[in-house]
Amino acid sequence: MLITRTSLANAVANGQRLYASFKPAPKLNELDLNPNVIAAEYAVRGPIPARAEELRAILQTNPSSLPFSTIINANIGNPQQLDQQPLTWYRQVLSLLQNPMLLKAKHISDVYPQDVVNRAEDLLSSIGSVGAYSGSQGVQLLRESVADFIFRRDGHEASADDIFLTGGASAAVTYLLTAICSGPDSGVLIPIPQYPLYTATLALNNATPLPYYLEESKGWSTNPDEIREVIVSAISRGIKPKALVVINPGNPTGAILSYDNIADIITVAAEYGVMVIADEVYQENVFRGEFVSMRRVFKDLQAAEPELYANVLLASLHSTSKGFSGECGQRGGYMELVNFSEPLKAAITKLTSINLCPTVTGQALIELMINPPRDADGESTKVYNQERDAIMVQLKSRSQALYDAFCKMEGVECQLPEGAMYLFPKITIPQKAQDKAKELNVAPDAFYCAQLLEHTGICTVPGSGFGQVEGTFHVRTTFLVPGTEWVQLWENFHKQFMDEFRG
Amino acid sequence: MLITRTSLANAVANGQRLYASFKPAPKLNELDLNPNVIAAEYAVRGPIPARAEELRAILQTNPSSLPFSTIINANIGNPQQLDQQPLTWYRQVLSLLQNPMLLKAKHISDVYPQDVVNRAEDLLSSIGSVGAYSGSQGVQLLRESVADFIFRRDGHEASADDIFLTGGASAAVTYLLTAICSGPDSGVLIPIPQYPLYTATLALNNATPLPYYLEESKGWSTNPDEIREVIVSAISRGIKPKALVVINPGNPTGAILSYDNIADIITVAAEYGVMVIADEVYQENVFRGEFVSMRRVFKDLQAAEPELYANVLLASLHSTSKGFSGECGQRGGYMELVNFSEPLKAAITKLTSINLCPTVTGQALIELMINPPRDADGESTKVYNQERDAIMVQLKSRSQALYDAFCKMEGVECQLPEGAMYLFPKITIPQKAQDKAKELNVAPDAFYCAQLLEHTGICTVPGSGFGQVEGTFHVRTTFLVPGTEWVQLWENFHKQFMDEFRG
Repeated sequence: MLITRTSLANAVANGQRLYASFKPAPKLNELDLNPNVIAAEYAVRGPIPARAEELRAILQTNPSSLPFSTIINANIGNPQQLDQQPLTWYRQVLSLLQNPMLLKAKHISDVYPQDVVNRAEDLLSSIGSVGAYSGSQGVQLLRESVADFIFRRDGHEASADDIFLTGGASAAVTYLLTAICSGPDSGVLIPIPQYPLYTATLALNNATPLPYYLEESKGWSTNPDEIREVIVSAISRGIKPKALVVINPGNPTGAILSYDNIADIITVAAEYGVMVIADEVYQENVFRGEFVSMRRVFKDLQAAEPELYANVLLASLHSTSKGFSGECGQRGGYMELVNFSEPLKAAITKLTSINLCPTVTGQALIELMINPPRDADGESTKVYNQERDAIMVQLKSRSQALYDAFCKMEGVECQLPEGAMYLFPKITIPQKAQDKAKELNVAPDAFYCAQLLEHTGICTVPGSGFGQVEGTFHVRTTFLVPGTEWVQLWENFHKQFMDEFRG
Repeated sequence: MLITRTSLANAVANGQRLYASFKPAPKLNELDLNPNVIAAEYAVRGPIPARAEELRAILQTNPSSLPFSTIINANIGNPQQLDQQPLTWYRQVLSLLQNPMLLKAKHISDVYPQDVVNRAEDLLSSIGSVGAYSGSQGVQLLRESVADFIFRRDGHEASADDIFLTGGASAAVTYLLTAICSGPDSGVLIPIPQYPLYTATLALNNATPLPYYLEESKGWSTNPDEIREVIVSAISRGIKPKALVVINPGNPTGAILSYDNIADIITVAAEYGVMVIADEVYQENVFRGEFVSMRRVFKDLQAAEPELYANVLLASLHSTSKGFSGECGQRGGYMELVNFSEPLKAAITKLTSINLCPTVTGQALIELMINPPRDADGESTKVYNQERDAIMVQLKSRSQALYDAFCKMEGVECQLPEGAMYLFPKITIPQKAQDKAKELNVAPDAFYCAQLLEHTGICTVPGSGFGQVEGTFHVRTTFLVPGTEWVQLWENFHKQFMDEFRG
């Protein structure tokens, strides 16, 4: 058979068949899928948010067809989707990186303060064009600036060689877990509740998640003895625990680890040779207590007991998506690989090189985040500080208002918010509602979230997507949504829900 | 043992030990690495480019210590690294997306043409803030614009539901191969020579690459009969061929497939139920002949013989990194999933959602690329067309100059450049040089590239990184480097190399 452009064009033009003949093969189907992909779950963008998108489309074509007029996205930490304004400083510098011709414009000083112009010129001389691939590990001078930031933060020196700029922290997690997981014999300790990126990435790598439970009644604290037990039990089942994920400040819990707690965790890692993955993307979102980096505690321990802590590997992650500015769509992030051996670093470098490089404007944004305007005389410093403080005040007051509301709701318990962007209240779901959920073949907390969505438009994520103690039910909600009306809506819904299903 | 912040601070302050006691575990080492990561290779950023970076560092500290004064990066298609200027239109619009406050600035009309302002306003109303996560598949209205572009290009309608915006085409390849590969029984046909992203991603997924050879003597054309043989042979070995990668225009070959050739390939895919992955990122880089999308031919065939072609799945990839603007660092891309069944699309959607979303400015850049200013009265149209034409003329003339130089070199054969950004000349490496390479335990073409680098600073990639017929040797070079001096340097080097090693 020889099909040519001419024979085909003639056949189509004359409405004739081509008279090609062969037996077509069946279509690729679900049996051809990678079973690890089928196994992976990612609740933050799971069925409840998907249903919210459907409802949003219904509202667009028929605004008064539902009991609410808008979808309230409390399911994902995405501040700028909720009308939070970006920091002026970030965006001014980024616009100059995208369009350096502006630096030559006549009225530039009318629109850009001098310190913005200076920083943009500095960054352009480090980076070159933001349209060129950088090195896979990121631009060298930007990595040096990150190392300086870490030194200022922790009081222990850092090296640019250990810094990898990444496309958000998610990419860093993928690189780390892909590098060390080699099938079901590889175990990774994850906190329960956890951010579902971890279980999803472990499923994709066909590795074994080793859950350790955070203690809800103690403000979601971490119990090192439980971590030890999980490690010992895994080893006894022939699973090598390769890494231990710690999310601090916690997602979805909002809890902050104490210095002493971190010291205990790192000691466990030293005893068992487990890499620590410190997800510290919320390090700026602190309302109560103090954030201490795991790296700082590790370096303190290493200084006191060099031999005992010589073998600890620590990967510390940060991101431009969180903090007070929430520049999620810009996809900036970094990881520091502390105390990694060369072969592990080489494996990770190879993985990053297959992806060529992280978005270069995202790399620049990391630099702007960790090196904000500080000069008291700088024109941008005042504006930057005002904008930052206003956002922080709002975050804190919103978290408090939502916490207060939960405390008042029947059968709801909530830990005091300390950091991050989320609350994770425990909800006592009445037996009748649990029965109804069973009938519908969904988890009880998924039923609660679905009802909340259908009645109010408030989109949250059921605790089952993050993990929880068997028989308990939770909901994760951000406290980013402006105003208090939606909190009132939730309170009203909850009352109705309890009235309907109470025993 | 209980270490506290106080006990630790005291110990460090007094130069004492902590008297913690446990037996530290050994450090994670190469034995703990994922063997698939060890197996993966990515030559574009392999040993020759790594050595080039070392030499660049030497030049920085000691500019006259080497026989050349600068590194010439011909190893990677990265135009803006080589001082190609970005298109004014792209960067003007992107700067407004980053800093929408500019739209309110007093002198905006002095610096931005009205059509730039209009497009930025349109995009901002589609996207919202570029700092918010978009949907994982990308912004709906941008995907609709991509579908319009595909319709204009191919004359067959496309749907926004089938468009996935991605972080460059590399991310799309990862999603596709991860979704369908489930171990060594999954085979994927790749052209030889190929872009090493494919073999690297297959190695990470522990799937089996099924090489099919392009015919160098026929301008690197594709032989459908050979593809059939490779498929049949794989099936006989118990390997299911799940996908067939076609790179058109070719990388590293620079060849363009004819309509008839594409029809043959799609027919093979229909016969054997193999997904076609059409890597069409160089579709704008065409100097000779005509680019025809695989999708257009598929849709033509389907129109003529609906039953025979009903089961073909086609994924078509595009990118902002290539074309004439080469905005590599912005990480924009898209894939269209043509005729995919729902479970396959759902699996890919899940994979994209674990990564949250592609960079939003990269998504916007895709829209700017596929929907450039066309209004003859628009202020930007003329500038855009001039800049585009100037770049295309340069690419064509540089490819010709390099081709002419290769034709003159002893023992070098090169196919006429038709598209993309590369030439892939075949180099007859004298036996004495092959012996020397063997002594050094490197491939003969890697030896040639290393010598070229050490003598001239020209960084290229050996053919062995892309695959080649056993016993033949090639070099991949971009033709993006400005000027002709470096071509002269290469000619001189080649003459010396041959004089040194000729039998």
